[in-house]
Amino acid sequence: MIVEPGPLLAAINSPADLKELREDQLVQLSQELRQFIVDSVSIYGGHFGASLGVVELTVALHYVFNTPYDQLVWDVGHQAYGHKILTGRRNQFPTNRKYGGMSGFPKRKESEYDAFGVGHSSTSIGAALGMAVASDYKKEFHRQHIAVIGDGAMTAGMAFEALNHAGVANTNLLVILNDNCMSIDPNVGALKEYLTDITTSRTYNRVRDELWNVLGKLSKFGPNPQAIASKVESAMKATLMKQSNLFEALKFRYFGPVDGHDVQHLVSIMNDLKSIPGPKLLHCVTVKGKGYALAEKDQTLWHAPGLFDKITGEIYKKVPATPQPPKYQDVFGHTMVELAEQNPKIMGVTPAMPSGCSLNIMMAAMPDRAFDVGIAEQHAVTFSAGLATQGLIPFCNIYSSFMQRAYDQVVHDVALQNLHVVFCLDRAGFAGADGPTHHGAYDLAYMRSIPNMVVSAPMNEEELRNLMYTATLPENAGPFSIRYPRGEGVMPEWRKPLQRIAVGTGRTIREGAGDVAILSIGHIGNYAVKATQLLEAEGLDTGHYDLRFCKPLDEELLHQVLSRYKALVTVEDGCLQGGCGAAVLEFMADHGYSLPVKRLGIPDRVVEHGSQDELYKECGFDAAGIAQAVREQAAKVATAKTPKLTLR
Amino acid sequence: MIVEPGPLLAAINSPADLKELREDQLVQLSQELRQFIVDSVSIYGGHFGASLGVVELTVALHYVFNTPYDQLVWDVGHQAYGHKILTGRRNQFPTNRKYGGMSGFPKRKESEYDAFGVGHSSTSIGAALGMAVASDYKKEFHRQHIAVIGDGAMTAGMAFEALNHAGVANTNLLVILNDNCMSIDPNVGALKEYLTDITTSRTYNRVRDELWNVLGKLSKFGPNPQAIASKVESAMKATLMKQSNLFEALKFRYFGPVDGHDVQHLVSIMNDLKSIPGPKLLHCVTVKGKGYALAEKDQTLWHAPGLFDKITGEIYKKVPATPQPPKYQDVFGHTMVELAEQNPKIMGVTPAMPSGCSLNIMMAAMPDRAFDVGIAEQHAVTFSAGLATQGLIPFCNIYSSFMQRAYDQVVHDVALQNLHVVFCLDRAGFAGADGPTHHGAYDLAYMRSIPNMVVSAPMNEEELRNLMYTATLPENAGPFSIRYPRGEGVMPEWRKPLQRIAVGTGRTIREGAGDVAILSIGHIGNYAVKATQLLEAEGLDTGHYDLRFCKPLDEELLHQVLSRYKALVTVEDGCLQGGCGAAVLEFMADHGYSLPVKRLGIPDRVVEHGSQDELYKECGFDAAGIAQAVREQAAKVATAKTPKLTLR
Repeated sequence: MIVEPGPLLAAINSPADLKELREDQLVQLSQELRQFIVDSVSIYGGHFGASLGVVELTVALHYVFNTPYDQLVWDVGHQAYGHKILTGRRNQFPTNRKYGGMSGFPKRKESEYDAFGVGHSSTSIGAALGMAVASDYKKEFHRQHIAVIGDGAMTAGMAFEALNHAGVANTNLLVILNDNCMSIDPNVGALKEYLTDITTSRTYNRVRDELWNVLGKLSKFGPNPQAIASKVESAMKATLMKQSNLFEALKFRYFGPVDGHDVQHLVSIMNDLKSIPGPKLLHCVTVKGKGYALAEKDQTLWHAPGLFDKITGEIYKKVPATPQPPKYQDVFGHTMVELAEQNPKIMGVTPAMPSGCSLNIMMAAMPDRAFDVGIAEQHAVTFSAGLATQGLIPFCNIYSSFMQRAYDQVVHDVALQNLHVVFCLDRAGFAGADGPTHHGAYDLAYMRSIPNMVVSAPMNEEELRNLMYTATLPENAGPFSIRYPRGEGVMPEWRKPLQRIAVGTGRTIREGAGDVAILSIGHIGNYAVKATQLLEAEGLDTGHYDLRFCKPLDEELLHQVLSRYKALVTVEDGCLQGGCGAAVLEFMADHGYSLPVKRLGIPDRVVEHGSQDELYKECGFDAAGIAQAVREQAAKVATAKTPKLTLR
Repeated sequence: MIVEPGPLLAAINSPADLKELREDQLVQLSQELRQFIVDSVSIYGGHFGASLGVVELTVALHYVFNTPYDQLVWDVGHQAYGHKILTGRRNQFPTNRKYGGMSGFPKRKESEYDAFGVGHSSTSIGAALGMAVASDYKKEFHRQHIAVIGDGAMTAGMAFEALNHAGVANTNLLVILNDNCMSIDPNVGALKEYLTDITTSRTYNRVRDELWNVLGKLSKFGPNPQAIASKVESAMKATLMKQSNLFEALKFRYFGPVDGHDVQHLVSIMNDLKSIPGPKLLHCVTVKGKGYALAEKDQTLWHAPGLFDKITGEIYKKVPATPQPPKYQDVFGHTMVELAEQNPKIMGVTPAMPSGCSLNIMMAAMPDRAFDVGIAEQHAVTFSAGLATQGLIPFCNIYSSFMQRAYDQVVHDVALQNLHVVFCLDRAGFAGADGPTHHGAYDLAYMRSIPNMVVSAPMNEEELRNLMYTATLPENAGPFSIRYPRGEGVMPEWRKPLQRIAVGTGRTIREGAGDVAILSIGHIGNYAVKATQLLEAEGLDTGHYDLRFCKPLDEELLHQVLSRYKALVTVEDGCLQGGCGAAVLEFMADHGYSLPVKRLGIPDRVVEHGSQDELYKECGFDAAGIAQAVREQAAKVATAKTPKLTLR
């Protein structure tokens, strides 16, 4: 199935082609672009609502500005489908987000039009400011630098840090605030309310209206009260406008709000803005999912709906014949409610991911105990630390790759004070189609460096539940992290009674009679199970142990394993440098063991997007890869034919 | 020498004693408290200007609020000396910041009055908000929660994230904005300018004045123009005030600005604020160093001046008989200018540490090429990434422990795009008197997990210069990190010609004829040199190799060392879990080496404050500790009496 572009869009293979159109043709082009996105996403999948919401913005930007010389930075970037289509990548959409195919986000390697690689939110202003300052330094004073940022992304601290710098940098920076009141979930926080206020009626307009109104009543006192009012108005305007607006307070020139779906008006305004020097902000009001009624109505569902029937709006779901395992995130979500019902100390915190991490289940059931704090990972952690000082037990759920945003807060505000905060790291390991920006590759390494921190990972749903329960126990009143991957687990029947796990204990999955044992941590252990089955068929009886805790390690289990086997394979869905395999090596060095160890995990390079299984395979830790590593270890110890040397 | 408190202060051993005073006595008490701080810091050392600036605030807060039930969070915390003195720790000042003594920052372990441990900036609003939400949940509706935050700390993103959440949280939170226009260095950015604007004349006042002025001229037109004006004013006030202020835009009630040195006025306002529910901000204007003329005049110098003569203001400096080694930070500062003079691509970036990292040298010499972006580590990194996309080579200097704030940006904005940004991590390893919040313990571990990243550490000044030069070469056009410690190096004659170092090569410091070799990284290698000298005197001829690069490792050198010696000791001024020693173990496992390795470094616990030498000793990697580890390794291999087993 091929998606056919409309007649205008079909002729556009670069922004130069776009510039050939008359302004009044842009309306039709926008419609065609919108239709192409609907058609493509319905059959190829991908992010949906965000790109529909910026169709007119995208057309106007490439029509007005001289891209790629003028530099356009899309914040987050999942709204950049229109941008990709207009910049020569229309025919690549069948490969969108697929292994070896086009990235779902802007990417510098992919196109010169992608000025900055994105994925995490709120980077655009700082990056574009860096470009603008560089242009000034190179005396390219007419070069334009544009950051397109959503109102959700604007709540993240680094966006504010960049505004604070840009406001006094006096360089060519245009921030386009794409205000649609949404992140993946509806936005929260004071900024969102403020933007709604100024959109419905801006301060200045209201003041002016008040003034005309009141002074109108003075007409009996004088000859020309409207003239007087006008004089009063202009006397006040300079004073007022300077600071009546949050962005103006930060020394930006503020324009808007404007209708972000009126493409001709956008072209006109952007043409004006090109000639205004210094930092400026254009406030565009848009509708996420614009033009596709169902997506406008349920914006969270249609953020990235999967494949669907574009006519009926039916979202295709596989209907499995037998009960399937749940997503780990839903096990988290339901278990939170279950734990919180039993323990009044338990609270939930998420930075703008209630539907992504399923904390929305608790937010609905216990609204006074579960909080979406906005795109604000740093604050989510320190806020949780504040709750913990009062004897509460917050579960702070942050995707592994986003937790990188709060590393200092985990160290400084939680761990150094040994506060009882439970970190649930969803999307740990390969994230799949979202690619390298979203891979949760580093958390095992960066968490286990931190004093007082327990670092754990469940191999299945039951273990996740038990680790969550364990983390609430008074005996574990300190920082406790639990990582688990995107997607489904392995247990259709997962609602087992909650059981305590002794911290720092692993599990024997399989005793092996052979020379080699596998040590795995987390969900990837299920692939190790398959590997041992493959090996068994070949006559290699391989041991398999689920470490469950990367820190503290199960020392007793390790002593047993290291004494019994002649070689090891460690497996983790995380970076090899400093990860769980390294922790095992440290244990071995500290205790004088010297077995050959092959570590499997995410290698020291940027791994691109693809399905999780494709990436496991690429990196050699799918079941076949694990089995092969075991074979090689077995061959090595067979060749060595030397007694095992244990230096104690 | 004992510091005698004044008569009122002498009677105050807790806030309860303070509350016995009449309001008018608070002026004298403030003077006594200020004098006690001057006297104490002059002979015991510590932070100075910040605490002097908040004397009246401190007195008023403990007078009005019911601490510790009401919860008082001091942002950063180096301004909390007055707080410590009033809360029972007056007599501990001789031990301030000394090994085993009182912390220079608030610390939960130290006192129930220290509601939250601090050190890094901008955590107070989020932490206090967590406390406030917990109080609401526990139905402690009259409990007060106060965050005292400087205008510098307010520029950091996490403060904004917390404001955005607090503005809609509808809980008892009082933010006291301590506006002194300073961090350690003068503040920068749009927010600072905004605060200056509203301090000198607030919008509302200006609007009102304009209105009275204009309408006054209308007197000839009517019977009672002032009454009309008054009517206009009140009609506008509700509309205007709601959003005329940045903090009000974020749904805080704003009060001020007030004189932060008028203690009786502060008491009166705070008493009023206690009964106003919801989020509110009191804007206090203070002078850093208030009451000590020299400190008011040069606020950066007197941030933490060291010991001084309180009468003359003379700051005591050791005058060495011979030329002494420079501070690493100054080698960085001067070398930046030298490199930038030769290479027009080089730029400098620091988040609010120009004097702390010595980028101020370049900022003075080349103001268009060196930037202080405010307390904004995240932005500093992404801004640098933006510069790098334009072919420039930014050196982004951030203390190791503060770089934790920008971990995601290092990964996401720099490393994944392989951009040419040089990270200089000052204060890497033990920070000394500032203690655990400032120890740069984790950077070797968290940096070496990141793909594309070069991780290096110089052993001396010449090496620092050469690494900086090397990092600018086109062959190394990617992320490059250089870590070095607080304080002085070892080379009085350090201005040597710049020389290229091949990335991933170490240095042989000493060939050893014995069984044991030391592998060190960075400045701590100088202690290893002393250790080998101690050992030589005992007849233990120990090898010593400076790895210089934690990533990539010098594989050739490692193969040589691992083939030649029978046991190793690794030494790093960084955390043991996942650090450089772990990198060596990974190399050994990957290449089938099985020597006994003893790793020395920062252990997996919170190490408190003290001098760097005291902490090295405590953790067993001062020269004596290193020597002892070598002896133990030598004894181990002598006992084992087995041939070295190499599994390849």
